[in-house]
Amino acid sequence: MTRRVVLLSGGVGGARLARGFEHLEDVEATVVVNVGDDDTFYGWSVSPDVDTVLYTLAGQEGPHGWGRAGDTTVLMDHLARFGVDTRFRIGDADAALNLYRTMRLRDGDPLDAITADLAGMMGIRSTVVPATNDRLRTEVLTGPGHWTAFQEYFVLRGHRDEVTAVRFAGEETARPAPGVVEAISDADAVVIAPSNPPLSVWPILAVREIAASVRDARRVMAVSPLFGGRALKGPADRVLTSLGLPPGNAGVVAAYPGLIQDLFIDGADQADVPALTGSGLSVHAGSTRIAEKDQAISFVRLMMDLLGPAS
Amino acid sequence: MTRRVVLLSGGVGGARLARGFEHLEDVEATVVVNVGDDDTFYGWSVSPDVDTVLYTLAGQEGPHGWGRAGDTTVLMDHLARFGVDTRFRIGDADAALNLYRTMRLRDGDPLDAITADLAGMMGIRSTVVPATNDRLRTEVLTGPGHWTAFQEYFVLRGHRDEVTAVRFAGEETARPAPGVVEAISDADAVVIAPSNPPLSVWPILAVREIAASVRDARRVMAVSPLFGGRALKGPADRVLTSLGLPPGNAGVVAAYPGLIQDLFIDGADQADVPALTGSGLSVHAGSTRIAEKDQAISFVRLMMDLLGPAS
Repeated sequence: MTRRVVLLSGGVGGARLARGFEHLEDVEATVVVNVGDDDTFYGWSVSPDVDTVLYTLAGQEGPHGWGRAGDTTVLMDHLARFGVDTRFRIGDADAALNLYRTMRLRDGDPLDAITADLAGMMGIRSTVVPATNDRLRTEVLTGPGHWTAFQEYFVLRGHRDEVTAVRFAGEETARPAPGVVEAISDADAVVIAPSNPPLSVWPILAVREIAASVRDARRVMAVSPLFGGRALKGPADRVLTSLGLPPGNAGVVAAYPGLIQDLFIDGADQADVPALTGSGLSVHAGSTRIAEKDQAISFVRLMMDLLGPAS
Repeated sequence: MTRRVVLLSGGVGGARLARGFEHLEDVEATVVVNVGDDDTFYGWSVSPDVDTVLYTLAGQEGPHGWGRAGDTTVLMDHLARFGVDTRFRIGDADAALNLYRTMRLRDGDPLDAITADLAGMMGIRSTVVPATNDRLRTEVLTGPGHWTAFQEYFVLRGHRDEVTAVRFAGEETARPAPGVVEAISDADAVVIAPSNPPLSVWPILAVREIAASVRDARRVMAVSPLFGGRALKGPADRVLTSLGLPPGNAGVVAAYPGLIQDLFIDGADQADVPALTGSGLSVHAGSTRIAEKDQAISFVRLMMDLLGPAS
């Protein structure tokens, strides 16, 4: 029997976990992707997390957590000669994808339809869907009264600023993309990826109807992004504590209050298990390294086994 | 002494004549360029005639009358893979220039300032200025009630349709770009380039204040785009006759009624001279081939000599 899984995903960590599900024959995965990082560069509507998921599922992901493998930068090199700020570097194939999306958005097509077409062109089996087709933007407070757009904070300033608050512009009105709520309701499990909880997962849950359907889901499992209490890459550990959450995996649990029934943590954090376990939360410690496809497949197989026999 | 010349220019023919003036030390040339061909492709604001002039003056012109020499098409090749219509092919360096212009236009900068900055970056001595910063679009009637945008007619349909009328959307409100009227008033001569009269020069004269200042100019000289009664390239001869103007150089004269004092025609059309001469029009027959830089320099030198000693 086929299991239905919905994965709530940010960029790299979520994409890697999604790759595991992509290759499990008996799983139908829907990857609901964060769009809080979306922005406009060079007049193009960029959706970095959506693209990281697409590229990773297609086996085309770039080596640094963004963009496409083996991409050239002919256009950026020319642009720089005109004095254009090209710190947000987009390779040529990646530029074409962003331009394609931008042209279709201008033609009035919704982001989910464009994303589905891209996934189709790339031969991806999983359903990849943006959390919302509406405008929703993650902003971080990096100084008194100083709200910063996500990409400015993350890419241009190298996520070095301390984040003391986070908000999601547009959350009051953002509706789930078509099919997202239905996929969550039908899922045997909702899996929260090892993405940055406040910066990559909260903006998905900021869509009210998505948060409500996750609360009602059959089972919700989260994978911690921490290894020995630290993020492998990116500011997840720092952001959790600067936002006032407990350090380490207690912070991950606190980020999803009452929402998750299972937490997967790395074996390096095994000592956290007793303190975390309880009030309806099962904690599973083991290797959560999923950078390689085979690691990801083994890991999601283990998660699926926890669900018991498929109905 | 320095002479001041204003050249009214379309694409290739005008750009080649402008190259002659660019290399005459004792001439200060202002090239007023047609923007009726401007359009939007891939979300970029393209200004094909402006760019042909810039590339030609910088010695970077592409071999086919558009784009940049030696350009690559990495971006277009990627775009085509997404199913995007890339018949309007823009090379990578050219794409960067178009993207740069588009970004600055979106920032609120006017086309003339952007063009001046590009000319500066490209080391161009002449002043290159769009006829207007306002929206002005050439449209051609190619069938009953069927008005076609210029680039659709010219590039996508290969200018094969018969043009029975031409109009310039926006002409009622378009104002000359800053400095254009002043340059014409100050000029020792206004030169109408060997560009397509109805399709490349009329849209410049469609800006009312430009037409008025040309009528009041000290001297107006036109160079015919015809050789043996035919355009070297493009549909100038066909368009003149399909619009109801006389065939050959009589059509060129009729396209600029009462406006020009001198007409330069190719030696191949020498037989036209007697019929054309008169009512204040001097006709000069000789080689008007200016594809090579040295030919263009010799030709404009000859034009300048006609003006008599510089004052």
